[in-house]
Amino acid sequence: MVKRTGRVTIEEVATACGVSRQTVSNAVNFPERLAESTLAKVRAAITGLGYQPDRSARTMVRGQAGQIGFCVRNGRSEFMTSFLTALCVALADRGSHVLLFTASREDELSVCADLLAQRAVDGFVLADVVDDDERQRWLHGRGVPFASFGRTWSGSAQSGPWVDLDGAGAIAEVVLGLHGLGHERIAFLDWTGSSGAAKDRGRGCATACRDLGLAPPLVVEAAADDPAAAEVSLRRALVGDSAPTAVVGATDTLAVGAARAASAAGLRVGPDLAVTGFDDSALAAAQQPALTSVRQPLDAIVAGLAERLRDPTLDGLLVAGEVVPRESAPIATAAERSRESSGAAAGR
Amino acid sequence: MVKRTGRVTIEEVATACGVSRQTVSNAVNFPERLAESTLAKVRAAITGLGYQPDRSARTMVRGQAGQIGFCVRNGRSEFMTSFLTALCVALADRGSHVLLFTASREDELSVCADLLAQRAVDGFVLADVVDDDERQRWLHGRGVPFASFGRTWSGSAQSGPWVDLDGAGAIAEVVLGLHGLGHERIAFLDWTGSSGAAKDRGRGCATACRDLGLAPPLVVEAAADDPAAAEVSLRRALVGDSAPTAVVGATDTLAVGAARAASAAGLRVGPDLAVTGFDDSALAAAQQPALTSVRQPLDAIVAGLAERLRDPTLDGLLVAGEVVPRESAPIATAAERSRESSGAAAGR
Repeated sequence: MVKRTGRVTIEEVATACGVSRQTVSNAVNFPERLAESTLAKVRAAITGLGYQPDRSARTMVRGQAGQIGFCVRNGRSEFMTSFLTALCVALADRGSHVLLFTASREDELSVCADLLAQRAVDGFVLADVVDDDERQRWLHGRGVPFASFGRTWSGSAQSGPWVDLDGAGAIAEVVLGLHGLGHERIAFLDWTGSSGAAKDRGRGCATACRDLGLAPPLVVEAAADDPAAAEVSLRRALVGDSAPTAVVGATDTLAVGAARAASAAGLRVGPDLAVTGFDDSALAAAQQPALTSVRQPLDAIVAGLAERLRDPTLDGLLVAGEVVPRESAPIATAAERSRESSGAAAGR
Repeated sequence: MVKRTGRVTIEEVATACGVSRQTVSNAVNFPERLAESTLAKVRAAITGLGYQPDRSARTMVRGQAGQIGFCVRNGRSEFMTSFLTALCVALADRGSHVLLFTASREDELSVCADLLAQRAVDGFVLADVVDDDERQRWLHGRGVPFASFGRTWSGSAQSGPWVDLDGAGAIAEVVLGLHGLGHERIAFLDWTGSSGAAKDRGRGCATACRDLGLAPPLVVEAAADDPAAAEVSLRRALVGDSAPTAVVGATDTLAVGAARAASAAGLRVGPDLAVTGFDDSALAAAQQPALTSVRQPLDAIVAGLAERLRDPTLDGLLVAGEVVPRESAPIATAAERSRESSGAAAGR
């Protein structure tokens, strides 16, 4: 028998008696919730293994906090709540919790160092990655486990493992769908000084147009990522015989402005002018007509981040976005196209 | 001199040399960021007090985790990101971080008990409070510090301290503003099986109408808290000579539906039919015309929660909402009304 040096974990008890982590916890805290036989089994394992539920003791003995730090910053991001919930699930599967903190961009690294010095966290998930990110360099240099949600766009290799949405690929899917609806003149709606992620979506649009033998997309630049600014910029582009018949927005916010520009020009969104957005926000779903958009597959993203916290040698992971077709551009999804083509191949 | 029994905290070092917590952290981790004189002063205090930055040691010695648990659940809530950021700030001021976890409603208490057993948290902030909340009873019974964001609506006293938005009061403000614009026939738009918070807003509407000598509000009930459902229900109510001239939505989502019903009936939102929402979501601001709504004052809410974690004997705290007037109902705010009346009193 191997001599144990660390404390017994709740996961070990769960595995030993073939129940979930939560059932072990219930046996300790809410025994009345369990069937007699289950309770007896779990209690036997707890006694047999000598399990003691105490995180701070575990920290001292095993040198692990069982926590991953994440910095949240203000902003109207409905996406972030879903991301945090998914991250909690993915990390709980590995016995870790999320230590949430907030700091300005300038102070974030200093707070990270503080948390490490306090042994409050074992590593970090980073968001809002920037070119030549000092957090990545600092953590990487000290061998602290971390995984970045997002890429840097400078061309230089970024430090440490990352997971990101394949924005270019998702927009290429959208353009393929628009082409399937008969669209040949496509505009890409961006904003001045847009993010690296938005520019990546623009590249996807250009590449897809080229691959389909279409003219390069008309790039329309709004003054800001804002419906009013997008409406103003797009109105001018909708005039003339060669005006686009489909507008691919870099964001849902821009797509809302595109839909307004269409209405102002007497065009019906959908039949006369196809409009698509990006993010699948509540805004997109609540428009009339509702906007086609691209959803980030959260479970795949957080699973990739959790894997990379454990094994920092893993490569960067590009996750495919999910195209969500709605009335503003009722395009076929990749799955539908593949069903159609296999149907055609079968001679239907 | 009092003999110290616990470890020295970073806050004590900061106080001793008159700098911020973050400056002490910088002195430990990023000394190059500080001026020589500041660095020397902080280092002297660190040495003098014998400060050692190690959270797990602190947990063992002082019996405190320095963490407050919060359960986040999936959902498109842009509000939650801002709430969590504000909560991190309010707790950091007291030297605590947020331990974020997720669980179904059924499992949440079990996870809470688990975290307490592990000494991972010192207490909890509870959201999604329900009538006869078992989390409140359980935590209260064990003397665990907690503070609830939200009230129960059963009429029975709830366990432990709480903070909530005064929804009835905020809607009364809205009705007062609508009356100031000349509106006398007001509808309140709710949904079937709405939350206690939505019903509280409805009571505020009824009370304000009564206090102003108006007819009771016409209560319109949508099948769900959804724009399409709200549009259908309100369309019927907009017919006839006694149709309301202003619609107070229990949520922004319902208000969006109300605006659509107005357009469908040939009414201009704002001039012909005033529409207001609640939550001040991105949806409200992005409507055309933009929707008047009510914002939750986050800083006051999280400050109240942090105070009540420290002192559970404090009473429940009702925080006033901020009315945000926009084109859909350009009402005067309380501040504007008070300026006007003082101007009138001064004989202007």
